Amino acid sequence: MAEFPEVLNVAMVGHGFIAAVHSSAIHQVRRFFPTRFGLRTQVVCGRDRATLQAMADRWGWQETAVDWQSVIEREDIHVVDIATPNILHAPIAIAAAKAGKIVWCEKPLATTLTEAADMAEATKKVPTLVWFNYRRIPAVVLAKQMIEQERLGEIFHYRALYLNQSGVDPAKATGWRYRLSEAGSGASGDLLSHCLEMALYLNGEIKEVCASSKTFIKNRDVDDAVMLMARFSNGSIGTFEATRFGVGFRNSLSFQIHGSKGMLQFDLEDMNSLRFYDATETPGVQGTKKLMVPGPDHPYARNFWKPGHPIGFEHTFIATLGDFLSALQTGTIFHPNFNDGLKVQKLLEAISRSSETRSWQRSLLNES
Amino acid sequence: MAEFPEVLNVAMVGHGFIAAVHSSAIHQVRRFFPTRFGLRTQVVCGRDRATLQAMADRWGWQETAVDWQSVIEREDIHVVDIATPNILHAPIAIAAAKAGKIVWCEKPLATTLTEAADMAEATKKVPTLVWFNYRRIPAVVLAKQMIEQERLGEIFHYRALYLNQSGVDPAKATGWRYRLSEAGSGASGDLLSHCLEMALYLNGEIKEVCASSKTFIKNRDVDDAVMLMARFSNGSIGTFEATRFGVGFRNSLSFQIHGSKGMLQFDLEDMNSLRFYDATETPGVQGTKKLMVPGPDHPYARNFWKPGHPIGFEHTFIATLGDFLSALQTGTIFHPNFNDGLKVQKLLEAISRSSETRSWQRSLLNES
Amino acid sequence: MAEFPEVLNVAMVGHGFIAAVHSSAIHQVRRFFPTRFGLRTQVVCGRDRATLQAMADRWGWQETAVDWQSVIEREDIHVVDIATPNILHAPIAIAAAKAGKIVWCEKPLATTLTEAADMAEATKKVPTLVWFNYRRIPAVVLAKQMIEQERLGEIFHYRALYLNQSGVDPAKATGWRYRLSEAGSGASGDLLSHCLEMALYLNGEIKEVCASSKTFIKNRDVDDAVMLMARFSNGSIGTFEATRFGVGFRNSLSFQIHGSKGMLQFDLEDMNSLRFYDATETPGVQGTKKLMVPGPDHPYARNFWKPGHPIGFEHTFIATLGDFLSALQTGTIFHPNFNDGLKVQKLLEAISRSSETRSWQRSLLNES
Amino acid sequence: MAEFPEVLNVAMVGHGFIAAVHSSAIHQVRRFFPTRFGLRTQVVCGRDRATLQAMADRWGWQETAVDWQSVIEREDIHVVDIATPNILHAPIAIAAAKAGKIVWCEKPLATTLTEAADMAEATKKVPTLVWFNYRRIPAVVLAKQMIEQERLGEIFHYRALYLNQSGVDPAKATGWRYRLSEAGSGASGDLLSHCLEMALYLNGEIKEVCASSKTFIKNRDVDDAVMLMARFSNGSIGTFEATRFGVGFRNSLSFQIHGSKGMLQFDLEDMNSLRFYDATETPGVQGTKKLMVPGPDHPYARNFWKPGHPIGFEHTFIATLGDFLSALQTGTIFHPNFNDGLKVQKLLEAISRSSETRSWQRSLLNES
Repeated sequence: MAEFPEVLNVAMVGHGFIAAVHSSAIHQVRRFFPTRFGLRTQVVCGRDRATLQAMADRWGWQETAVDWQSVIEREDIHVVDIATPNILHAPIAIAAAKAGKIVWCEKPLATTLTEAADMAEATKKVPTLVWFNYRRIPAVVLAKQMIEQERLGEIFHYRALYLNQSGVDPAKATGWRYRLSEAGSGASGDLLSHCLEMALYLNGEIKEVCASSKTFIKNRDVDDAVMLMARFSNGSIGTFEATRFGVGFRNSLSFQIHGSKGMLQFDLEDMNSLRFYDATETPGVQGTKKLMVPGPDHPYARNFWKPGHPIGFEHTFIATLGDFLSALQTGTIFHPNFNDGLKVQKLLEAISRSSETRSWQRSLLNES
Repeated sequence: MAEFPEVLNVAMVGHGFIAAVHSSAIHQVRRFFPTRFGLRTQVVCGRDRATLQAMADRWGWQETAVDWQSVIEREDIHVVDIATPNILHAPIAIAAAKAGKIVWCEKPLATTLTEAADMAEATKKVPTLVWFNYRRIPAVVLAKQMIEQERLGEIFHYRALYLNQSGVDPAKATGWRYRLSEAGSGASGDLLSHCLEMALYLNGEIKEVCASSKTFIKNRDVDDAVMLMARFSNGSIGTFEATRFGVGFRNSLSFQIHGSKGMLQFDLEDMNSLRFYDATETPGVQGTKKLMVPGPDHPYARNFWKPGHPIGFEHTFIATLGDFLSALQTGTIFHPNFNDGLKVQKLLEAISRSSETRSWQRSLLNES
Repeated sequence: MAEFPEVLNVAMVGHGFIAAVHSSAIHQVRRFFPTRFGLRTQVVCGRDRATLQAMADRWGWQETAVDWQSVIEREDIHVVDIATPNILHAPIAIAAAKAGKIVWCEKPLATTLTEAADMAEATKKVPTLVWFNYRRIPAVVLAKQMIEQERLGEIFHYRALYLNQSGVDPAKATGWRYRLSEAGSGASGDLLSHCLEMALYLNGEIKEVCASSKTFIKNRDVDDAVMLMARFSNGSIGTFEATRFGVGFRNSLSFQIHGSKGMLQFDLEDMNSLRFYDATETPGVQGTKKLMVPGPDHPYARNFWKPGHPIGFEHTFIATLGDFLSALQTGTIFHPNFNDGLKVQKLLEAISRSSETRSWQRSLLNES
Repeated sequence: MAEFPEVLNVAMVGHGFIAAVHSSAIHQVRRFFPTRFGLRTQVVCGRDRATLQAMADRWGWQETAVDWQSVIEREDIHVVDIATPNILHAPIAIAAAKAGKIVWCEKPLATTLTEAADMAEATKKVPTLVWFNYRRIPAVVLAKQMIEQERLGEIFHYRALYLNQSGVDPAKATGWRYRLSEAGSGASGDLLSHCLEMALYLNGEIKEVCASSKTFIKNRDVDDAVMLMARFSNGSIGTFEATRFGVGFRNSLSFQIHGSKGMLQFDLEDMNSLRFYDATETPGVQGTKKLMVPGPDHPYARNFWKPGHPIGFEHTFIATLGDFLSALQTGTIFHPNFNDGLKVQKLLEAISRSSETRSWQRSLLNES
């Protein structure tokens, strides 16, 4: 890998909601995760000059630009952060990689498996990051740690839900996320991809899937909801559901894992806690426990505020960047990188085929 | 239908846990649901004389008998209540029906679709009842009422889980429920059948299913867990899971329904409440509400204790009997009867075929 | 003590809501708590003949009577159960005791401390019971057991709330409970008495109290709400609140206890669970745990249904009677008896004085 | 008031946990609450040079200084932010006010009422802020808004708890917070002050209090716990408890308010939600609702992330600063300022006197 200077100048493409979240994380990362590297919010790119300038002012970007191609060519830029509609991920990422930049890309990696494979191929020599931020929720990190400590034993069931109600009102459910040509898919790429990435992280490889998707609104060409059954390599079975018609929820990403020694349960709506059932305790006092996180001994215990002081959504992006910079400093491989994003894309492809053919499909994870 | 006397003499076959629950309900029903009919706990049948007598003493049965066949022939018996292993449901029910008795049968109706069809055929002329008691949980009754009042609007999603941990320890997970020959199936007949019956009650017919079952313990010949996707006639989609490997739960039967106008959520672990999200309220004060049941205006408000005084599991059996006797009095058809039990069996059959063939299967509901 | 026959004939005075609850428990107690003794619902007494007969029919009483005095004199009556307005507790109990009857009395024991002392004195030679049923909630029994097992360590805080909203609407809040002459007090005798009895049971003697009561409705002569601070003999401090103006709750009786080794928390609205925090666990996995009760190893594990099958409010009355009959059989002293009821009355008296004088008052518990 | 430049240079005194939180808020405020004013983290003062420099590096302070007195004299400093032990609040604040600086002070305002009164007097001509940040929790802001919209009607009860377990272990419970000379008090100034400030904000003036405090650890000279009863000017009654012996909780600040039209409930452990019971709804569907905040129409809806994306503890400091700068821009009076801090100190004084004299005390709020 190339050497990188201690202050990395970032060029961001995109200036919407998620671009603001990235910006906030870029500004804050060193406060919580001190590393050798600093980040400078150098230039933000977009097509609408008026809103672009307002965003740059609010979120502290030095420059604005309408032509991302030429920005990517600039020698003083070290990182390209992609916060655009999905359809632009591939061209920007590939161009950035060719120019030797570090590439960060919003999830899902691409609109198709082909694109994702091309992106993974093109970025082989540069550090990459996909913004699957939810993996860095302290409660999820604690879940991972507990699984690695064998506190769940043999895993039997994995169950994941992503519920929001964003798609119900056709008058509001507009924009690129509702167009196949720009998004690649609907609820599956937008929501399910988070669940899949987290499942791979927590429960390992998926062997095969059987899925079914549904579009409730006439003439909409993306899926509003998707449900699926999965078989994992570790012998456990899983169910997944992601929907934009989950009335009653604004942003509920949850999972539940049953193992021979215990159970874990999480919901983003209560992101500072993790539920744990320890089946190895005396039967009479077994019960589901609410662990407040981050608590003492948590991997992020020294990064965020004292135990008992809740953190929020944006801190998951801070932790993502913090771990990325730390990996850069130590020369280790960061996850989730573009290869991890490609795995999710393979699953999305298998799910899409399964839904179309109404049959079980291999996950493609071990195919190149 | 035949005329029945005002005091109905009951003969029960079986004397285990569920027989005790039925007994308790038989004794109590008139306190909570006064009707013209009374019930007398006349004779309880079983093969183990010692435990049978103890059970009869504790639960107030007048007589005991080891030979259910001759009991069924007795003229003074008006009701036969079947609380045996599944494999005995069909012979007892058919014999009882031939003798003109009212027949009550523990769920699931039978071990196979063929048996269930025979039972439904044989009982055409006698009143029947299948002990799918959970339909009578006041919170479930309230859910039904709210759906009928159109408080959910168009239904998008139905999601049901039945989790317990009864199958994990092979040393404890023994008995007829773990033998295909006596039970017909494992988690699917035992647990999933409740979820299916409730789904038919709350959300109507299921058109097709795609299922997958799993047995975690070597040499066990019944399913430990089953998961499935479903498509309902009303256009909604559903997921179901039932497992005896749901570590962390002793008896969690839950459902969640999302519609265009709201969401409903229930869990047996908190059986005196129902969660409701009203999506027609002002957006700023929308939220999931915990309704304590039975509350004022509830269909069972006058039957059970005052609002705020929780009732328990056994009251669902009392309500089942209460509604049965009321139907008998008014000459209306009680649900769930053997035809309803047959529908569940058709679904179980389709689910079994789907799991074996790894393909979507029609639900068989509209086939005779 | 006198000898009692194996079938105890009960005469009940009163025929309202709580009389029905007692009746139900009388019928059921032997199913769940087999003892040598049986109970027969012999005669129910009341002044309104029409409703009295309907109650007798529904709840299985052999006879009705309008004159409780002559019923108490009957030789075939062994138990007098008092389910009347508070003002009648003393005369009935004293008459029954004089006639050598077992006396059961609805809580609170009396309308004044003088009455209560007279009742305790009069019943010295007969078995007594006060219907503080909530002490027998399985979750409360488990709490007691855990405290005795020293799982909380040194107790620091005891906190109790009884919230309902019964007093807010003057049009509905009528009847004897709202008249000082018949009830003795308002929220304090009706609701707080439960909290006090439970505190004595779980946390021991109270040394002194400082209270303040409030009547929100003009011209009402009983307290609508009462709040107090307490100092316990074990060194812990406590707060109590009971109110009929607790809008949002129908019947929430809750407590929370903090000790050096853990915390316990209970709420009647979720009566089949107990929350426990074990402060002796590894810090990183400490959290409040939801114990489902009754679970395995629970004192009532063999009495009620299998773990995971919730029981209800009325089972606390069954358990009360079950334990009473068991004590009668073994010749041990049952709690809470009239002496326990007297202790609560002493506290109520101290609380009343404290509220009037705006000062701390000794609890009177160790005074005769 | 004096004119202030558009970029305000801040000097902070103190460099511990809370100083880091303030620093983070200073850096972020303009991203979420754009105003005319900017803030520059100019100089941080402290006595321990090594940790001071590390803190300055991590949290982006331009300079460090050991002598706060001379920093306060500097003309280029516009704001003095006090994040020191309580005993230093008064001298620093008074000096800063004399130098014409804007003064921000960590809570509680002072160690005694005399100090607080002097501080309020000295700062009459400069803008002030007391860091009672919890008032700015979006859920609390929503509660305030709902109360002002008369959604609770006449208030009956106010109930507040602040529970943590920081004081239990004498080996860890050390430092200035456990010394009367530096802190002024224990749980009352540290924890209860938050509850009192919030009560004044949400429920108005308190007329009188009756309190009792407790120190569980021998030789400790501050209160470990304090409990009190209060009477509010609006006719409602309240209970408060704050303790460092609330085993089971790391940082639980909660309140519950019952009014004639509804109930509100909040707990910091679940800071992105507010519970609401609307007693004006149809009785059958009344229930406690969980409102996720900030939701649409929330006063901070445009400041923080989209509904459904939880924010954390530090955002309350950001919102505090945001509202302060907005008030500065519009020339309106910010709350809570030093006068508000003085009110809390008057209550703390009345509570302390009440606990010592074991008697009700007037709140002193309307005395100068």
